[in-house]
This record gives sequence, C-alpha cells and structure tokens, in this order.
Amino acid sequence: MWKEENNTLTRTFEFKNFVDAFTFMTKIAFEAEKMNHHPNWSNVYNQVTISLNTHDAGNTVTDIDYKLADKIDKLFDGWGSKFKR
Amino acid sequence: MWKEENNTLTRTFEFKNFVDAFTFMTKIAFEAEKMNHHPNWSNVYNQVTISLNTHDAGNTVTDIDYKLADKIDKLFDGWGSKFKR
Amino acid sequence: MWKEENNTLTRTFEFKNFVDAFTFMTKIAFEAEKMNHHPNWSNVYNQVTISLNTHDAGNTVTDIDYKLADKIDKLFDGWGSKFKR
Amino acid sequence: MWKEENNTLTRTFEFKNFVDAFTFMTKIAFEAEKMNHHPNWSNVYNQVTISLNTHDAGNTVTDIDYKLADKIDKLFDGWGSKFKR
Repeated sequence: MWKEENNTLTRTFEFKNFVDAFTFMTKIAFEAEKMNHHPNWSNVYNQVTISLNTHDAGNTVTDIDYKLADKIDKLFDGWGSKFKR
Repeated sequence: MWKEENNTLTRTFEFKNFVDAFTFMTKIAFEAEKMNHHPNWSNVYNQVTISLNTHDAGNTVTDIDYKLADKIDKLFDGWGSKFKR
Repeated sequence: MWKEENNTLTRTFEFKNFVDAFTFMTKIAFEAEKMNHHPNWSNVYNQVTISLNTHDAGNTVTDIDYKLADKIDKLFDGWGSKFKR
Repeated sequence: MWKEENNTLTRTFEFKNFVDAFTFMTKIAFEAEKMNHHPNWSNVYNQVTISLNTHDAGNTVTDIDYKLADKIDKLFDGWGSKFKR
C-alpha cells in the first residue's frame, strides 16, 4: 500500500522479473505523460518504487498525486498482480 | 488461435485500447530480441496481428516460429487475456 | 517521404536494427496516444511502415493526419536519422 | 561522466523531457536484458540516474559493469545527446 511520509506518497511493487517490471513502468509512463504529472521512481531488477508529490505545490502531496496513485493501483491490480511473487 | 497458411503462422490479438496493445508488443519485443527472431507484425488501435516465419529457411515456418508463437501465447494468457474484450 | 494514395498517407522508415525500430515506435506511441490519433503501422526487423487516415472521417486523410505525419518526421529527423542505413 | 564511488558506477543523464528520458531507458532495458545484467536506476521527469555494480560479486564494480556503462554511453552519444540541454 501507499505510505505518506515527508510530503511524499510512496509504494513499492514487486514482479517476477525485469521485463515484467519494465513493462509495468511503460504502462505507467503513458498514463503519467497524459496527465502531465511524472513520478520520481526507481527500478532494480524486479522491483519498482514510485514516489509522488507535486513540484508546483512546493513538493507536497496534492489531489493529482492521489489520482495518479489510484491509476497505478488499478493498472497493477488489473494485470500486474499476476506477476506478484 | 494461430493459423498456418502460405508458409506463415498468424494470429490476431485484441485488447481494450491502444496502450494495452502497445504494452503487449513491448513485452513480445523483449522476447523476440532475446531469441533474435523477429515477427512481422502490425497494429491498429487495440489490435495486434503477428505473422511468423523464418527468413533463413526460405520464409517457411520452422521450429523457432512455433517456439515464439508459444511464448506469445503464454504472455497473452498470463496477463493479456485480462484486456480481451 | 509520405505518399498519399487511396485515402491514406504512408511512409516507410528504415533503421539499423530491431531495437532502434522499436524504440522509434515507442516514441511515436506516446505522441499518438496524447493526440488520441493512432496509426495503422507494421514492423519487420528494422523497417517500420506507418499509414495514416481518419476513421471518424470515413477513413480519409484529414488535418490531424498531416499533423501526426509532421510530428513523426520531426522525431525521425531529430534522432532517428542517425539509424538510417 | 561515470563516477566510481562506494563500489558503484554512477552517471546522470539529462534530456529535453520525460518521453525522451523514458525512450532512452527503453533502449537500455533491451541491452540490460540481453546481457542479463540490470541497472539500479531512477528517473524523475527529464533525468535518468544509473547505478551499476555486480550483485554476484558482493555488490562491487566488475567488468560487466564497465561493459554496460560503455554500451549506455554509446547509446547516449549515438542519439541521446540530441536531447541534451
């Protein structure tokens, strides 16, 4: 689940392997670009950690962050969960 | 299902939308590149049609085509089926 | 260059290899999704053929097709030309 | 340039925008998967920071890290530099 701390929403997702993790990132990249709201995220092998806050609001968590977090959850539950360990 | 005709294996996949179709292509692209065996494929919106044969065998269907077809099916059944209409 | 024929704008691009071709497609995919105007395109190894027309205008070529064609050219001239043979 | 520190090779790349940064990551993802050697990397908007070391060698920098760093530089100089600010 997402954790809100230090003005940032953060969640880590785990997949079966690198390709599954990167494919998940590709799907989110389309979503983020369409919203013009981009995550601060990192990946190592099968793990993706996503951090969200709003630069234009002094790097605090705003509505658009909750909205993107919700979309990411839906993408993950929709198919990404298949790859969960 | 795959159809073998005119020395080519062909199957069409249907998704909910463009992003789901393109994400599926991304996953296959990694697989194809690792096998060094690349599809002849086309996409329009939510549809992806994949045709396979082996250039080095005079454009006939060979074992590596069945192998790639099988991997694509597994990728599709694994998560792509979620997006099937 | 783009060729207009049978109510369709078409152009073929050639790259050094499959990964370069697919990376170019990824960049166009973002653009197409943002415009909500999607190409009919095909790829085999290092070649990408893109066909454009407008479904909502009875599959004829309209302004949005010229606009997307222009964006694709800019993406290709911007970096894709590096991969031209 | 890459900096070697704390048993890690690190370099940050800057692009014009998010799509250019993510497209660059896609290209590297193919390379990393083929080498079966994956980066620890992060992205925020137009920036990509890549860290490399070898898990199987107690997280120290080994030959395969220099090899991947070299490939990434070639990919960046080949076309990514076009997007440099």
